[in-house]
Formats: sequence, C-alpha cells, structure tokens
Amino acid sequence: MLLESFYHVAQSNWAYAYDKETIHLRLRTKRDDVDEVVAETGDKYDWDRTYSEYPMVRTAADGMFDYWEVAFKPQYGRVSYCFRLSAGSETVWMTENDIGHDRPMPTGDYYDFPYIHEIDLNMVPEWAKSAIFYQIFTDRFFNGDSSNDPEGAALWGEQPTWENSFGGDLQGIIDKLDYLSDLGVNALYLTPIFDAPSNHKYDTVDYTKVDPSFGDNELLRKLVDTCHSKDIRVMLDAVFNHCSEQFLPFQDVLKHGEKSKYVDWFHIGSYPLEVKEGLPNYDTFGFFGNMPKLNTANPKVKEYLLNVAEYWIKEIGIDGWRLDVANEVDHHFWRNFRKVVKAANPEAYIVGEVWNDSLKWVLGDQFDSVMNYPFSNKLLEFFSQSSMDGFTFANRMGGLLMRYPQQTNEVIFNLLCSHDTPRVMSRVAGNKRRLKLCVVFLLTYMGTPCIFYGDEIGLAGENDPDCRKCMEWDPEKQDRELYDFYKLLIGLRRGHEALVKGAFRFLKANRGDQRIIYERIGNGEHFTIWMNNTEEPTLLSHPMDTEDWSDALTGEEVRPIEGVMDIELEGFGYRILRRSLG
Amino acid sequence: MLLESFYHVAQSNWAYAYDKETIHLRLRTKRDDVDEVVAETGDKYDWDRTYSEYPMVRTAADGMFDYWEVAFKPQYGRVSYCFRLSAGSETVWMTENDIGHDRPMPTGDYYDFPYIHEIDLNMVPEWAKSAIFYQIFTDRFFNGDSSNDPEGAALWGEQPTWENSFGGDLQGIIDKLDYLSDLGVNALYLTPIFDAPSNHKYDTVDYTKVDPSFGDNELLRKLVDTCHSKDIRVMLDAVFNHCSEQFLPFQDVLKHGEKSKYVDWFHIGSYPLEVKEGLPNYDTFGFFGNMPKLNTANPKVKEYLLNVAEYWIKEIGIDGWRLDVANEVDHHFWRNFRKVVKAANPEAYIVGEVWNDSLKWVLGDQFDSVMNYPFSNKLLEFFSQSSMDGFTFANRMGGLLMRYPQQTNEVIFNLLCSHDTPRVMSRVAGNKRRLKLCVVFLLTYMGTPCIFYGDEIGLAGENDPDCRKCMEWDPEKQDRELYDFYKLLIGLRRGHEALVKGAFRFLKANRGDQRIIYERIGNGEHFTIWMNNTEEPTLLSHPMDTEDWSDALTGEEVRPIEGVMDIELEGFGYRILRRSLG
Repeated sequence: MLLESFYHVAQSNWAYAYDKETIHLRLRTKRDDVDEVVAETGDKYDWDRTYSEYPMVRTAADGMFDYWEVAFKPQYGRVSYCFRLSAGSETVWMTENDIGHDRPMPTGDYYDFPYIHEIDLNMVPEWAKSAIFYQIFTDRFFNGDSSNDPEGAALWGEQPTWENSFGGDLQGIIDKLDYLSDLGVNALYLTPIFDAPSNHKYDTVDYTKVDPSFGDNELLRKLVDTCHSKDIRVMLDAVFNHCSEQFLPFQDVLKHGEKSKYVDWFHIGSYPLEVKEGLPNYDTFGFFGNMPKLNTANPKVKEYLLNVAEYWIKEIGIDGWRLDVANEVDHHFWRNFRKVVKAANPEAYIVGEVWNDSLKWVLGDQFDSVMNYPFSNKLLEFFSQSSMDGFTFANRMGGLLMRYPQQTNEVIFNLLCSHDTPRVMSRVAGNKRRLKLCVVFLLTYMGTPCIFYGDEIGLAGENDPDCRKCMEWDPEKQDRELYDFYKLLIGLRRGHEALVKGAFRFLKANRGDQRIIYERIGNGEHFTIWMNNTEEPTLLSHPMDTEDWSDALTGEEVRPIEGVMDIELEGFGYRILRRSLG
Repeated sequence: MLLESFYHVAQSNWAYAYDKETIHLRLRTKRDDVDEVVAETGDKYDWDRTYSEYPMVRTAADGMFDYWEVAFKPQYGRVSYCFRLSAGSETVWMTENDIGHDRPMPTGDYYDFPYIHEIDLNMVPEWAKSAIFYQIFTDRFFNGDSSNDPEGAALWGEQPTWENSFGGDLQGIIDKLDYLSDLGVNALYLTPIFDAPSNHKYDTVDYTKVDPSFGDNELLRKLVDTCHSKDIRVMLDAVFNHCSEQFLPFQDVLKHGEKSKYVDWFHIGSYPLEVKEGLPNYDTFGFFGNMPKLNTANPKVKEYLLNVAEYWIKEIGIDGWRLDVANEVDHHFWRNFRKVVKAANPEAYIVGEVWNDSLKWVLGDQFDSVMNYPFSNKLLEFFSQSSMDGFTFANRMGGLLMRYPQQTNEVIFNLLCSHDTPRVMSRVAGNKRRLKLCVVFLLTYMGTPCIFYGDEIGLAGENDPDCRKCMEWDPEKQDRELYDFYKLLIGLRRGHEALVKGAFRFLKANRGDQRIIYERIGNGEHFTIWMNNTEEPTLLSHPMDTEDWSDALTGEEVRPIEGVMDIELEGFGYRILRRSLG
C-alpha cells in the first residue's frame, strides 16, 4: 500500500457530523491500491464497552485516489477512531500520529471527534435540495412595463454591449411566471435588482431600494408573493464586497475627504480620492474605480449591510441570498451574516460566489452552498467534445464530490453557465445533442441545478456581454423542442426524490471510452443513466442483476438478457432507466 | 516524483496570512523526492504585471514527507498561485485541479488567496511568545494562611489521594512570588480556583467566587496586582464544559425537575434526574455524575459564562484563560468567547485543552494556543530512553510544526508534564541527566514553555493523584542543583530572543544515531544546540562554516577546525553554542 497517499484529518470534509446523531468519516488511499478499510471506533471514556468496527465503502475516485466513506451513529455523540487498511495479506493501522503494522493502543493516538454539537451542525435548507433554479438577468428577461424603461434603452433583441439596457423589469418577470411554472422550475435567482447605474446592477447605489427601471419595493413584494403562491422561491443577489462610486457614503468621502464620517467605510490609501480605472487610491473590486471595496470589518458597515440582508427577508419575504464576490469579504462578516439571515428565516438559502475550492465557507458557519463553476467547467470539458474519456470525467466529478461534506453536495449550486460565462449552447458549438447530454447530467446529478434564462429555448452567446442577450419570446424563434426537453427532464427530477437525494455512483466510466453509465439510488427507487458522448450510434452493455427496469421517460419496459443489459444509443444519445426498490 | 504524496489546500495551515501583509504557503512532497519547488504567483486581476516566482524552502520533514514553505507579501493583499516542482530533468505544475507536465494557463485553475482581511488575521499575544509559564495546583503549592484550611486537611507532604486536601492557597502563592521571580518564570497558570468541592476544583459550584479555602476575590486581585508589579502574568483555568452537581442551576433542576427554569442549561435525557456514576440520565463530563455537562449553546448559559470570562479579566486583571476540556464545547461558544475576551483585553492569551490535532481551534477565530501534549509525548518518547534515533525524533517534531500556522507554533503551550500526566522526573525514571535534556529542549524550542510546579526541585510522581504531591519547601530536601539548572536555562531563554522567535531547524538527526544538533536563528543571533541522548560520552562533529562561536552558558570560545566543529559531550551531555550575526 502506498502509505504516502493516505489522507485523513479529523475535521472539515474528512470527519463531520451530517446530522445530530450521524458522523461521516472519509479516507483517501491510492487508486486501486487498498482492498479493505475499516474504521475501528469507540467512546474514549468507555472504550471496551463501546468498541465497534465499521467497514468503509469506496464511494468515489479521482485520477490518483480512492475515497472511502462510512456513516455511523456513535452511542454518546462522540467517537475516537483509527483506520485499519488491508491489501492482500498486508494490514496497517492509521492513527493521528502514525501508520504502522501493529494495532495501536486505544485511544491516545487515535483520531477524535469530541462531541456532536447541534449548534455547530452544518444545516442546509431542506427545500433547496429539491429546488430547480432559474437565473434571471432582469434587464434582459421581459419588459413588462415600458413606462420605467431606462433612458435610451436599446431595442429588445439588439446586440448587448457592456453599457446598453433593454428595459426588462420585475413586472416582466411577474408576467412570465406562468411560463416558468409551465417549464417546471420552482426557484428564481435574480441578479441584482437594487438601485445601480449599470445594466447588471453589480454597482449598488442604494441597497434599500429596487432600481426604478425595474420597479419598486412594492412590486418586488408582489413578485415574491406571487411566486410563493405558485410554490416558487426567490433568491436575490447581494453585492456586499463593493458598491457603486455613487453610493452616498462614498460620495461623502469624495466630497469631504478625511473629514467625512464615512472614511472607515472603505479602504483608503490617500486623499483626495480620485475615481479612475487602473490603480485608484482606494481598494476596489479588481481595479474598477467605479466599484469601491466596502470595509466589512467596520461595525457600522456591518450593521448597515446586515440590516439590508435582514430587511429583504423579513419585509419582502425573499428565500435566499446569492453573495457576489463572496470570497473577498471577511469570514467574520459572513458568520454574522449567517446568524442574522437564519434568525430572520431559518430556511433561507445562502449561496456564495466562490470560483475556487470553497471548503472554508461551507463548513456550517457561513454559506449553505457555492456557485459550482468547477462542476460546470469539468462537465463542459467532457460533453463539449469527445476527446476526454469517461474515466477522466468520472475522476473529475469524484474529486469534486469529495471536496465538501455531503450536506453541501446536496445543495451545491450546479450550473451550466451564467451571466459570467459563455452560454452552454455556445460551449457545445451549437450542437444541441451535446447540450442535451449536459442538461440530462445536470438534472440527474447531486446538487441544486440552475438553468440560465433562455438556455431552455436555445439562446447562444459567448462571454459577457454576449451571454446576456435578451430573452426570445417569439415562439417561432424559440426552440420549442428544446423547451419540451427541458420541461420533461425538470419534471422527471421533481417527480423522483432518488434523483435529488439518492446516492450517486458511476457504474461505467472507462479509459478510452466516451460512454458512461451512472446510478442514483434511494427513497425506494433506482435509476441508471446511460450516455453516449460520441457521434456514432452504439450498443452499451452492462451486467445487471435486477430485472424490473423501464424507461423513466417513456415507461417502456427494458429487460436485461442473461444478466446483461444492452442499451442501444444514438450518437449523443441517452437513456434513463428506473425501477422500484423492494 | 511521487504525485500521490503532494498536498496543498488553499486554507488553514497550508495557506494563511501571517500578518496583514504576509502570506505563508506550504506544500508537502514525498521525503527526499523533489529537488526544487517554486510558487508561481500573481494578482488574478492583473496577472502579467504582478507575476512573481518564489522559491520554496524545505523547512521540515517527517517520516514520509518533506514540507516546503515560503513567505511573501503580494502587492495588493491577494494572490493566485500554482506550484512548479522539479526533480532531475522532470518538471510538473500543480494547481487546484490537476498536476501536469504543461504549464497551466493562469489563473482559472490556480489556487486563490482572495484577500488578506485584518479582522480575520490569526493574531496571538506578543507577550506570550516570550513568556515562561509555571503551572500551580493551588492546594499543593504553599499554605500561606492556615485559617482557611479545608476541614480535615492532610498533613503537608502526605501522599495525595483523589480526595484529600492540603491547605495550599492564594496567600501561599503570594508568599512565594520571590521564589518564582528568582527562578525566572514570568507567567503563572493556576488550575481552577473557583468555589468547588474537590481538591482539584474542576467541578465548579460558583464561577464568580474564589474558593474559600484558597482565599477570596480580593486576595486574588492582590495576587494578580503583585504579580504584575513583578512582571509576572497570571492565567486562570476556565471549566466551561461542565460544572459541579452542586452548581445552583443544576440543584434547581434536581429539585424542580421539568419545571425548573434551568432545564435548558443542561442536556437532560429524562426526569427525575439521578446523580450517579456510570450512565446518569443527563450528559456529563466522561461518565462522572458529579460533573453535569453545560449546554453552552443556550444563550443564557453562554451569557452567564461569557460574563464570567469577562469579569475576571476586567475586574481582576487576569492575563489569560486556559480552557478545560475545550474540545467538547461548541465552536460557536468559543468564537463568542474570543470576541468577549479580546474586547476586554486584546492581549489576553487563550489556551485550549485539546489533546489531539487542534487545527480547527487555532485558525484565528477561537484559541491562540493549545496545551501541546503531542509535543510532550514525542519529546519524552525520545529522551526517556535511548531507543529512538534522532531521525525519528526530528520527524515527529517536524510533523507537529507543520500541523499549525507559524503564529500558533510561536505561542503553543509546550509542557513536559501536568496535573494530568506523570511528572517528567518519573517519565525519565529518575534519571536527572535525561530530565535535563528534556528541559534544555523545552527551553530552546519554539513555543511557550510551561514548567509544572516542583519539577524544578526534583519532584517525582506517577499519574494523578501521585503527580499532584505537595511542593517541597525544605531546602535540604529540594534538589538545589536542579533548581539552579532550571534558573540558568530560563535565564538563557529570556535573555535571547533568537531562542524565542528564531527559526528552528535540525542540523543533525540521523538514522541509528541518538545524538542531535539543531539551531535557532534570528534577531541577530545564532544558536546551535548539541545533545547526546546516550549514556556514553561522545565526540559530536558537524561541518561549520562560521568561526565565532562561544558556549552560551559559560562564555568559553569554541572554534571549528578546518570547517568542522567537534564537541565532546558526556553521557546525556548537551552544549549550547552561540554567535552574533553580522
């Protein structure tokens, strides 16, 4: 066994409480190197009477490693443990201090999970597990009220630029709720809607006021209430890392310099302030002079922003916050933010924008979830071409699943694209069959899926501003076949809890083979998903020791022959099979 | 290169801010496997103009791994980075997503340190770096006031049992401050002194009151003030995990059952409560019925205990808290605790009792330090016998250093023994020369050393209660030679900042050789410490390209000959050499 490959620490994604009774342990070993791993566990205050062994299961793998996992409920909510690993005739024990061939003495050197504290639990909102989000860039979705159009608004459907606006608004969203209900999504994520000069509104001037070109606070309340009456949740976008240079406190500093009472609201290098691109004499988002960075460590700024966070939940009833540039705001702020938000609504869903490994934000004290761009990137790398094999794809997905605790994986914000990336249709170079494979995977995988407005009717677009085109409402110009496909898959996910919470496992993901099979299993149902990520039709075969399968979309019976299931797939074809469990 | 051995995550002990400008990165590789590691860094918003390469230094090693480290100050307080590793003619790049032979495109897959936030900095009290603590078990140190002796107190010097008391008290400590000043320690750690039935007082009845057999709150104030006038700091012991069954709120629940307003102060399984050993129907420390576990998640309990924490700092002026059974109290509580304590005194020192890997408590939001029992165990394993070689010892120490950020290592609470372990004299089976090596290592190593009362005059003792013997005050029965040795070494550490804050490195630690050499370097001084952990006299040689060495304890000049330093050492001998830098 390659001892250097072993990894475990008694914290974060390697040892955590899943709920108030259950502890999850994970261990990493070299790929295909270890036959068996057993967790040897007990209560350190009464070892002999509580000793238990738990065999661990190889639940994921990446290019280099196998990941073993076990869930168990220790009798007194605490556990000391070590790992026993075997390969062939060799057995080693791994403790916090050593790896050796002799069984270590309990419990001095053992790993320790001291106590499950309910208050420390990493709790995620239950509803978010079964939510299917739809992301709306308000200016580009639908113009429901032309009276509030911004001056000089472009014609609907013109090419977007970094500057132009199109008049989309909250009334437009209200007008199209039946469309969204028909599609089947049950949650909206709106990019920022507060008063701001830009079309994207990521440069807030007034955090307490809906942008006049979108409507007003009352209209937002109406939107939220109407959504709720249709069982649709609403998540807004909070831009707390920075503001607009027109934000009044910043204007005050511009005007009064060092004498302003707002000097500590920002990170200022020298006076007088000079608003410019490049290297302004104050901290900004990136190097954008029009977006001064807020000093979120200042108790006054914190109070101001936390009041904002609370206001829109308590007064308007929104169901969650997506947090812009969340990784550049301090952790103290987010811990306070979580307390305020969860106090206002314990079921509020908090999604941080963090593009990198986000572990330190999703351990229960800050966010429930993060925008899962690593998922999008890896998924699109696979399905946008046929050069990566299933083995590599499964490795990439496996590695991502092991980054976070299971509860995070259950509500992580999975997306194919957003206002900050090229659209999925463009990423697959217009190949609709490839796009459909992406959507099937998104909607049958673990995590909370989000659809970017217009993807469902075939909108394409390269990077910003091209990905922010106006929604196409002319049915003649919409791809209705694609819409029906989205609707079908959304309905499938919403109708089957196994696709939401079921255990995930790749059944087939081989070297040099672009075809994959994976399963979801749980809540009385078992799904297998078969995909052909090549242009050529194929016959995909897999041993199957159960009989009672049917096509989940058509209901057609599908039977293995002599223990082998043969599935014919078109080029870029897929098939979703289902059976009931006992 | 063994890719499976590489380890880095962009957080905790692997990537952290040391101060408001400096980022430390660490990387792990297989031992003796990689020739060169370079951090390729830049600002993700302006990569080309900020690109910098930082060669990493191999700063520690353990049995399986080398640990590489680099400190640098990124221009805008944020950095994206990857690692370039070379061995022979092979070069690989490691990013957050992959290890490969091609230079990755900046910055998508790179690791990211988004922003150094001052409020998130892991700040430790500067004074604690140069503190030398002395741990006092009050009942056993000195009886300064016989009028407050507990009923039935045993005769001073009798064999301690789990139950008996001896009359030691705060006046006794005040009376002996000149002794402590003469010894040279500059900080006291007192085990609990609040009102409690036991001799150890880890079962608090009244958190607001000094135990009457120790004195009263005014006397504690006098002790603290007198200590401060002698430049001695005072740290008390907070037992917040549990209380005594005589704690009034618990008595109230015993009496009124479910109707008590204190039911939520504890974790109660069923009524009526039954106080017994084994499995009481409420949560306890271990399975001790007389120590009910407090519900620290209850806002009222939290408020009560945080007021206690604040009171003794604000009103009495104590300098820190040692936290009993800290690992079994929730993290929310400790985060609040830190805020309250640091608000009352930003320089307060917070030391948790955690026997295992304590990383999750020392990342800046909870403790400054933990009781470093893993250090004691590994040190005593080496010096208490001559079977372990220097190679293994250095590996054990190296592994421990890499567990925590540098600032934690600088104030980690290093001890040889305590009231919860056998005394060091017993661990070395009475071999004073072995004991001296332990002390030399403790006092020339990184971290905050603590001496258990009486170790300095030769007290021995096996596990509790034997390790809690009465202090010997009869000079005839004290080992005065040992005392002078402690005093000398304490004086040396206090006189030379390099021994406190200097960089640490093993110079010689070989397989099959029990002799070691290590260095401390910094603040204009350079020390090398030479140790012979065998019974036989030896000549220890090491290449030395600098000339101007002298014995740090005697002042005697010591010169290398033709670039080699030869040091003669007695059995269990040691020598501390010093030279000035530049």
